[in-house]
Amino acid sequence: MIENLKIGILGGGQLGKMLIQASLDLDLDIAALDPDPMCPCRQISKFSNGDLNDFDTVYNFGKDKDLLTIEIENVNIEALKKLENEGVKVYPQPAVLAVIKDKIQQKKFYKSKNIPTADFEVVNSKFEISRHQQRFPLVNKIATGGYDGRGVQMLRKVEDLEKAFDAPGILEELISFKKELAVIVARSVSGEIKTFPTVEMVFHPEANLVEYLFAPAELSEIIDLEAQKIAKSVAEAFEIVGLLAVEMFLGPDDKIYVNEVAPRPHNSGHHTLRANHCSQYDQHWRAILDLPLENTESIKPAAMVNILGADGYEGAVKIEGLKNILEKTDVFPYFYGKKTTRPFRKMGHVTILDNSVAGLKSKVEYVKSNLIIRSN
Amino acid sequence: MIENLKIGILGGGQLGKMLIQASLDLDLDIAALDPDPMCPCRQISKFSNGDLNDFDTVYNFGKDKDLLTIEIENVNIEALKKLENEGVKVYPQPAVLAVIKDKIQQKKFYKSKNIPTADFEVVNSKFEISRHQQRFPLVNKIATGGYDGRGVQMLRKVEDLEKAFDAPGILEELISFKKELAVIVARSVSGEIKTFPTVEMVFHPEANLVEYLFAPAELSEIIDLEAQKIAKSVAEAFEIVGLLAVEMFLGPDDKIYVNEVAPRPHNSGHHTLRANHCSQYDQHWRAILDLPLENTESIKPAAMVNILGADGYEGAVKIEGLKNILEKTDVFPYFYGKKTTRPFRKMGHVTILDNSVAGLKSKVEYVKSNLIIRSN
Repeated sequence: MIENLKIGILGGGQLGKMLIQASLDLDLDIAALDPDPMCPCRQISKFSNGDLNDFDTVYNFGKDKDLLTIEIENVNIEALKKLENEGVKVYPQPAVLAVIKDKIQQKKFYKSKNIPTADFEVVNSKFEISRHQQRFPLVNKIATGGYDGRGVQMLRKVEDLEKAFDAPGILEELISFKKELAVIVARSVSGEIKTFPTVEMVFHPEANLVEYLFAPAELSEIIDLEAQKIAKSVAEAFEIVGLLAVEMFLGPDDKIYVNEVAPRPHNSGHHTLRANHCSQYDQHWRAILDLPLENTESIKPAAMVNILGADGYEGAVKIEGLKNILEKTDVFPYFYGKKTTRPFRKMGHVTILDNSVAGLKSKVEYVKSNLIIRSN
Repeated sequence: MIENLKIGILGGGQLGKMLIQASLDLDLDIAALDPDPMCPCRQISKFSNGDLNDFDTVYNFGKDKDLLTIEIENVNIEALKKLENEGVKVYPQPAVLAVIKDKIQQKKFYKSKNIPTADFEVVNSKFEISRHQQRFPLVNKIATGGYDGRGVQMLRKVEDLEKAFDAPGILEELISFKKELAVIVARSVSGEIKTFPTVEMVFHPEANLVEYLFAPAELSEIIDLEAQKIAKSVAEAFEIVGLLAVEMFLGPDDKIYVNEVAPRPHNSGHHTLRANHCSQYDQHWRAILDLPLENTESIKPAAMVNILGADGYEGAVKIEGLKNILEKTDVFPYFYGKKTTRPFRKMGHVTILDNSVAGLKSKVEYVKSNLIIRSN
């Protein structure tokens, strides 16, 4: 059946690129849709240029496909619902996307399903937020449109009200977490579920992006099993088909709180291309094609470092230090094919394997100080 | 430097496809040249349609490139030599290709470099071969143009003279080998050399193609080291830049004889995509881009089964049994994107991992009897 299937991906960024790379093994017939004619997927699949939030664009892109998937959740869900009604398979399902895309609905969903998450209130404006200022620090998340660290603000003191979103969103208790964790879950059309080993994320303080991660996470077996169990229960609660990246906090009380989820391949699973028997990209295809899921076992401890555009540089990409970092063993760079850099833009990542966490950390530091993206 | 390099690959078949897949990680700018407009590389890189043996076609394809490589050795070497003289980097070097492409020259090269190989004589016609018939069984190999089992004939009895090539070639002693082995070597522009673990090949008796292989090979440490050493010495003798797949026989005397070499990614290295820290494709790019070579260590014992078109079927591809084989753990199919099948055509391969050779063999048998390529 895979030999005659017409497949569309909404989004043509780096996650789409890696999905397509994996799909080549199965010789899938793929088209990508993206607003940027120079996006990473432009030359490796069929490609349509257009707005992911425009009903007609998404509908017209999807109507001759057998199967649609996404690599970004900020897409026109109404068009996907119409396509689904007309018989196109859409995984993840539009109804799931609708809940996840709206942080208010997402949080309410967790509460209704008894999934542990930080306490929150719904707010609709800056004025409403101001009425909670005596409870700062709080986290203000915009309901829709946030992505990659945009759409989240820490409100620590009254002056921070300035930065608060004057739009519907949530105010969340700030959890002074010990660790931030992620578990990628895959759930297939038939309901088979498999998780990847838990990863531990370290954030870049300025850019508010994952700076590097380690996998498997350094956790007691009890906490690790709990993280795995909660991640699985979230995927089951959504009845999602495809990947679900579940980001969690390990609180000061050693309890786990679901922070947010992404219904697609995720930054926290890049390393699976080298560090696990199958990658998150392989697994996504298996899940949405209703094929048996593959072994997610870890091969070796891994780290993943984001390659961000150096501060102060903007323009055509110039990669520095590539040879240096490749002199270390088990260091695998991935460049996303973005032709121009700007400060903190995600230009790629590096996956690192090592026998020990200490070894990983030393290679991470080496990569961070040696591989620099400047402009010409 | 990699960000502005224009790279060309001569050949657009499955090996080119897997080279391009690996190149996407480094965001290399690649164009492929192939005579078949429906070849596997047609949609994943820039693509030119043309004859690989035509001087002008190859020259015109290469003249605006910075770096050229191959995925098939049957190409116009004169054009490559001219391009090399004009400053285009061509790896593997045309002079090496010229020796390897001609089995007479290749065998003479081994003799001149004291590389162990079966004894042989040069023959120019069927008539000349007939003069050796009292020494049958012998192997008759055509000097140029042979590929994938074509261009080799076993001459066991006088009647087999019929099948002998009426063209320049060699007559080789038939080694009643215990095992057929292969070692893939990479040698970089700077002369760094790394080998992949030795693999053991099993041939399909009718199709004369590798049917499946195991890696690492089951050999005593002494013999394994010897195979590795000989393979390395062949790459050093050629001073090749890029990959060299060295196929060897383990003779009845436990001595190793070089059978032939391929100056490119090879069937016997497909499994490295899953079974080793880096793949042969990754390593080829590192070698020809003059980057440090990566760790070739084996992760788990692996097998690779070719997926051949079923006998009796010709036409549009129909894949049967995919779901069945994916129910087994660590079974990874690769389909090459050929739109039509014919008996014994190489349509793809399956890489299998397991902790034991017995486990591998049982999965190989399962895959062979369950995954079938028929036509619609």
